[in-house]
Amino acid sequence: MRGKYGTLTLAMVILAAFIGGCASSPDIQEVRPDPLPLWNDGAAKEQIIGFVDDISDFFSDSLVPVEERIAVFDNDGTLWPEKPLYFPLEFIFDLIEEMAEEHPAWKTEEPFRWVLEENYSAISTEDFPALIQATHGGMTQREFSRLARKWLRTAEHPRFEEKYKKLAYTPMLQLLEYLRKNGFKIFICSGGTAEFIRAYSGLAYKIPPEQVIGTTIDTRFEITDKGPVLFRTGNIVPPLNDREGKPVNIQRYIGLRPIIAFGNSDGDIQMLQYTTEGRGPGLGVLLHHDDAEREYSYDEGTEKALELAKENGWTVVSMKNDFKEVFPEKEEEQVKSGDQLSTGSGQGDR
Amino acid sequence: MRGKYGTLTLAMVILAAFIGGCASSPDIQEVRPDPLPLWNDGAAKEQIIGFVDDISDFFSDSLVPVEERIAVFDNDGTLWPEKPLYFPLEFIFDLIEEMAEEHPAWKTEEPFRWVLEENYSAISTEDFPALIQATHGGMTQREFSRLARKWLRTAEHPRFEEKYKKLAYTPMLQLLEYLRKNGFKIFICSGGTAEFIRAYSGLAYKIPPEQVIGTTIDTRFEITDKGPVLFRTGNIVPPLNDREGKPVNIQRYIGLRPIIAFGNSDGDIQMLQYTTEGRGPGLGVLLHHDDAEREYSYDEGTEKALELAKENGWTVVSMKNDFKEVFPEKEEEQVKSGDQLSTGSGQGDR
Repeated sequence: MRGKYGTLTLAMVILAAFIGGCASSPDIQEVRPDPLPLWNDGAAKEQIIGFVDDISDFFSDSLVPVEERIAVFDNDGTLWPEKPLYFPLEFIFDLIEEMAEEHPAWKTEEPFRWVLEENYSAISTEDFPALIQATHGGMTQREFSRLARKWLRTAEHPRFEEKYKKLAYTPMLQLLEYLRKNGFKIFICSGGTAEFIRAYSGLAYKIPPEQVIGTTIDTRFEITDKGPVLFRTGNIVPPLNDREGKPVNIQRYIGLRPIIAFGNSDGDIQMLQYTTEGRGPGLGVLLHHDDAEREYSYDEGTEKALELAKENGWTVVSMKNDFKEVFPEKEEEQVKSGDQLSTGSGQGDR
Repeated sequence: MRGKYGTLTLAMVILAAFIGGCASSPDIQEVRPDPLPLWNDGAAKEQIIGFVDDISDFFSDSLVPVEERIAVFDNDGTLWPEKPLYFPLEFIFDLIEEMAEEHPAWKTEEPFRWVLEENYSAISTEDFPALIQATHGGMTQREFSRLARKWLRTAEHPRFEEKYKKLAYTPMLQLLEYLRKNGFKIFICSGGTAEFIRAYSGLAYKIPPEQVIGTTIDTRFEITDKGPVLFRTGNIVPPLNDREGKPVNIQRYIGLRPIIAFGNSDGDIQMLQYTTEGRGPGLGVLLHHDDAEREYSYDEGTEKALELAKENGWTVVSMKNDFKEVFPEKEEEQVKSGDQLSTGSGQGDR
């Protein structure tokens, strides 16, 4: 029986391919299902699909071989929100509150005091190394991964009352899936610390740890009585994965220039320049947060990027107009299609 | 006609699968084709195939999900020779000779003088930063990649009278292919500089640039009148990708502990310890150069690793006894099966 049905199906596929081959191309385009149904029709959607069609069309001058189809995505503000606080900072602040009991001196010592007093506006980029040192160092790689996963399992977003890992934008998840189907290898390239991102990138985005570029914390190899471990020193390996640091790390980790870069803020400018201003095709995209009702509306920290988008022809995605939805319906499953990767959940625990 | 043959083949495949399913397992094993025909039967081959069978058997306690099947391979001395000189050094020395005309001071300045006088034994690890600075820095990423590819196209091995990139060991290429078929993602983790390895890893091993971990040279992002470039400073980003540096970089670049590590020298010890001494399955393999006739025979620089192999149960591959051949026959094609990746040839040139 199975053989018979197999035969029938095979014949039908061949027939369909033959008919398809004879049809004129406008007909084919009309029957093609919408690859991004969670995106409203408009310039942004058109530009993204047009670019992917162009670089994957065998007869196009812009054809890019599959192994060079690299896309880089910023994370905070691009794949999930970054308000009211940048999530990696939220993680750090929560850890500091948890660890404060063991560090009574922090009550008077800056920048820790500011965190404990929730005086977040006092904290600047210069304070990051000390805060990262205290929360990301002094433990093994495995211990840190456990801390990160625990936070992601329990902490909730103050406004959306939802676990952070469930706040990935569904139209963006759909875009990642669409690019993968078109042969893209997708890397996250974000300012957060790499092992924090790796703790959820598998589950949230189906992006395995080896495709995550973040700010790197140094480790030291040690043989202990429990076997070999990587001990986290807590020192940042320069550069911070932000601004000029992004293209530097893209070369370091990938070794190829991406053909798509997707960001949302001034920290993504250099990554977009690197992707779009070289030889060959390159698509730069910025997500604009203009949707106070469903998410947030703000321009601070993105002014320069939005200005350069106009100059350089980068695609600007309006969350308000281009996203049919922002987050998954609460009763629905988060990832709409396909299975979730198991990588990420157990990462670093072997 | 095509449909008819397709049908026939399909029916045969289904029939074969059915018969296979009914047969008892020893019969299946007997009819299974040898996955490593370029390897002689023996303990090494048995241990490698046994490990792969074990971690990919759905009913085994050692089953490792596909996304965690990470294998790391040293390059020099493991995938191709490292004698009479370590090939990355050969590349550096050739560049210094080429550049000497523009640097007359090198005639009296060490370590450059030693290179020009071919007094290689005078050069030690401490001299590497200066040699690397002079040859790997002061140019853009694209310019460097061109230098590396030019060398690989033209330079010849003094004994084998063959281009370096054609000296990959065929049994090792077959092993890479076998692991890929079993779901492994393979990374090179070698002491050479990353961009030098990336210039040939696609063509020689079908390993794309993003799966190459080498010693990293720092770059600086700059906007020039020719567009954005990565300017190579020539400084090494610590750690050197050797000894303790290997597991540190494996975590940094991959974020997962490998389950197979394959090396050949004392510089690979920590990578093998990290892979084999943690929780869960891990296979460590050392290639022993004991074949003066077909390649080289030496123990210097590998003594400690060979000793630890006994203690830790690492598999030792004897080039003499375990390799049916070492290099491709000169009249044959280098890569025996499948197409070559185009990645690597054009890398960095977009």
